[in-house]
Amino acid sequence: MASNYTFSEGTSGITEVPGFKAAAISCDIRGKGNDRLDTALVYSETPCAAAATFTTNDVKAAPVLLDMERIASGAPIHAIVANSGNANAYTGKEGIADAREMAAILANSLGISENSVLVGSTGRIGKAMPMDALRKGIPAAAKNLSTDKDSGKAAAWAILTSDTRPKTATATFEHAGKTIVVSGMAKGAGMIQPNMATMLAFMATNAKLPAATLKSLLQRSVFASFNRITVDGDMSTNDTAVLLANGESGLDETALGTDGMAMFERALLDVCKALAHMMVADGECISKVVTVNITGAKSEADAEKVARAIGNSLLVKSSWFGEDPNWGRLLDAAGYARVGLDPDVLDLSYGEIPVVTNGTPIYDNKPLWKARVSQKAFSVDLDLHMGEAAFTLLASDLTEGYVNYNKSE
Amino acid sequence: MASNYTFSEGTSGITEVPGFKAAAISCDIRGKGNDRLDTALVYSETPCAAAATFTTNDVKAAPVLLDMERIASGAPIHAIVANSGNANAYTGKEGIADAREMAAILANSLGISENSVLVGSTGRIGKAMPMDALRKGIPAAAKNLSTDKDSGKAAAWAILTSDTRPKTATATFEHAGKTIVVSGMAKGAGMIQPNMATMLAFMATNAKLPAATLKSLLQRSVFASFNRITVDGDMSTNDTAVLLANGESGLDETALGTDGMAMFERALLDVCKALAHMMVADGECISKVVTVNITGAKSEADAEKVARAIGNSLLVKSSWFGEDPNWGRLLDAAGYARVGLDPDVLDLSYGEIPVVTNGTPIYDNKPLWKARVSQKAFSVDLDLHMGEAAFTLLASDLTEGYVNYNKSE
Repeated sequence: MASNYTFSEGTSGITEVPGFKAAAISCDIRGKGNDRLDTALVYSETPCAAAATFTTNDVKAAPVLLDMERIASGAPIHAIVANSGNANAYTGKEGIADAREMAAILANSLGISENSVLVGSTGRIGKAMPMDALRKGIPAAAKNLSTDKDSGKAAAWAILTSDTRPKTATATFEHAGKTIVVSGMAKGAGMIQPNMATMLAFMATNAKLPAATLKSLLQRSVFASFNRITVDGDMSTNDTAVLLANGESGLDETALGTDGMAMFERALLDVCKALAHMMVADGECISKVVTVNITGAKSEADAEKVARAIGNSLLVKSSWFGEDPNWGRLLDAAGYARVGLDPDVLDLSYGEIPVVTNGTPIYDNKPLWKARVSQKAFSVDLDLHMGEAAFTLLASDLTEGYVNYNKSE
Repeated sequence: MASNYTFSEGTSGITEVPGFKAAAISCDIRGKGNDRLDTALVYSETPCAAAATFTTNDVKAAPVLLDMERIASGAPIHAIVANSGNANAYTGKEGIADAREMAAILANSLGISENSVLVGSTGRIGKAMPMDALRKGIPAAAKNLSTDKDSGKAAAWAILTSDTRPKTATATFEHAGKTIVVSGMAKGAGMIQPNMATMLAFMATNAKLPAATLKSLLQRSVFASFNRITVDGDMSTNDTAVLLANGESGLDETALGTDGMAMFERALLDVCKALAHMMVADGECISKVVTVNITGAKSEADAEKVARAIGNSLLVKSSWFGEDPNWGRLLDAAGYARVGLDPDVLDLSYGEIPVVTNGTPIYDNKPLWKARVSQKAFSVDLDLHMGEAAFTLLASDLTEGYVNYNKSE
């Protein structure tokens, strides 16, 4: 029986999983002459079954196109090289060649097949990769690959862009005398409204699961985590979530059984949800994390439309920043989602504090509204009373700092 | 033959049209104890044929619901009362009663039918109208109704909220010895991404056209003007565009003939486009007006999706504010519109300055890009090379000032 479930954030990420090594190095990809870590390596001593989800943007970065091809081939994955500071997106054939070369450099350094290496990139779009620096940096980093916790932490730092802190989470449970670990690292901050994918998230496990099983588990988890967050409503060209399974535990689907697989899925979902939450909580210059709960919709798609209209409204987000319980803007946004809602029957609350009940504002609660939206995190709960479907979106406010940060690179 | 076409902005608006009177007064609707003009009246000496378009938001303000009913009835319209500072939206049955009473007060003052009065409101959502002040103010203003240019100008001021300047435009032409005038006033600034309607825009003409004709003309003009702008992507609960025709010129559809009707449509479209442009140019705290031209799309709907993705992207808008030619963000937004575009064949330029040609960035033009996006107004021209359809959206940048302004009421 699966037992002793644990979950923690702020771990070393990938190196929590037995058999996984990591390393990080500075290649000065931003060209600022400093030694900020910007290139991370992940290596499994044994080849892994792998699954991944990618951005659904029509404009896909070169490493996304490369990884899609490699994941589709079903070949085992041995290693990942991921850089921050340059997205290698909209870089044409040269960009594809650069992504392939990054993988080849790492493959040569490790004596593994080129096709077993995935590549991840994040940063400015439309800029050529500084390949000279990577040709030196990747082999040097490969020599430092280690199972040390510090190596995992360094890798989690190296993939960050405008993030202010690394994002890692780990879940473990015991089964048949073995410990199954699911652990991952991610980066977020800006251009965050993933759809069917996420920004960079690399996860690993020592369960012995085939690619097809990993794929369906990962898709379900991504759908319920990374696909339900927004910072700025901008979907990236580079969104990638990868799950590697090295089988080190020896526990396969049969050995895990129904309850072991259920606990594995819980572990994976918890890791994905935690990483997704960290992305919003560390969104570019944000000051609030707001959970937008839509219930009573006719369909989940309708509930999602309403949630995204609210969570991406500039006026709503600006008022959250100002701690102004300007719920009129929130219902305006709900209305322009145009799911046919009836303003006269809906219920709106901030958690347990009613704002509108059966279409009538409860003005006596005004001081409570203000107190609630002044908290660092709160929820907006809107029941449309049209049906049974629901959707929850994790959103942030919009600050002057965001605009200032993004007015130039 | 229609001839001597003239067009000018910054006119007195409604009172440019023979037979129309205007007035404005302060009712201290914002409750700030000052005498800022906040209530405008428009009155035609003779009843008018009328057409209007309204917000398609599921949450419609009380005056919108009232006006929809009155326009649908086909009854002639004699007057309009419009206020700023309170949207009378999400105010329940009381709000509807207040809107009806505002119309009734004006009708009683003027001795006209209650059903011949339209109401417009703009401002904070979810706040009861200060009816006591309006019960005094509207009759007082009615006494001051005048054909004076100053009265028209005062009315154009009174409907403003966060706007910094009034928005008026007038077109005239001669036909059969008469002068046909089409003139209007509007307000904009925030919560601007109208769809099938606009913020408040009141237009008038002395042509003698029936409501059905006005309706189709207005719909076409609104579709090609107000429905192609965005400041913040937020569609209001109160969007209303009204066109009144008092017939003063005596020229009806037959008298105007084909060329007179064509010139009338041009006049109406020019007035709508000018008012729409003024709304964006005076958008809340904006610093740039950007024309987003999408061509070569498979359908107009596709072109519109791409244009709105670009024009509403926080990252794109922030970079416009920073005068950073960060075209990668622009193509990222185009990509997440998901019309199936092929990044390898598209052409992108800032006006005549190429950025990407046939999928290849023209990096030699970098200094020119920077110079162009540093101008107060510029265009982004994206040819998808997928078909023949096009869409043009007028958009603004996003500034720290916008966020600061909107963080509280």
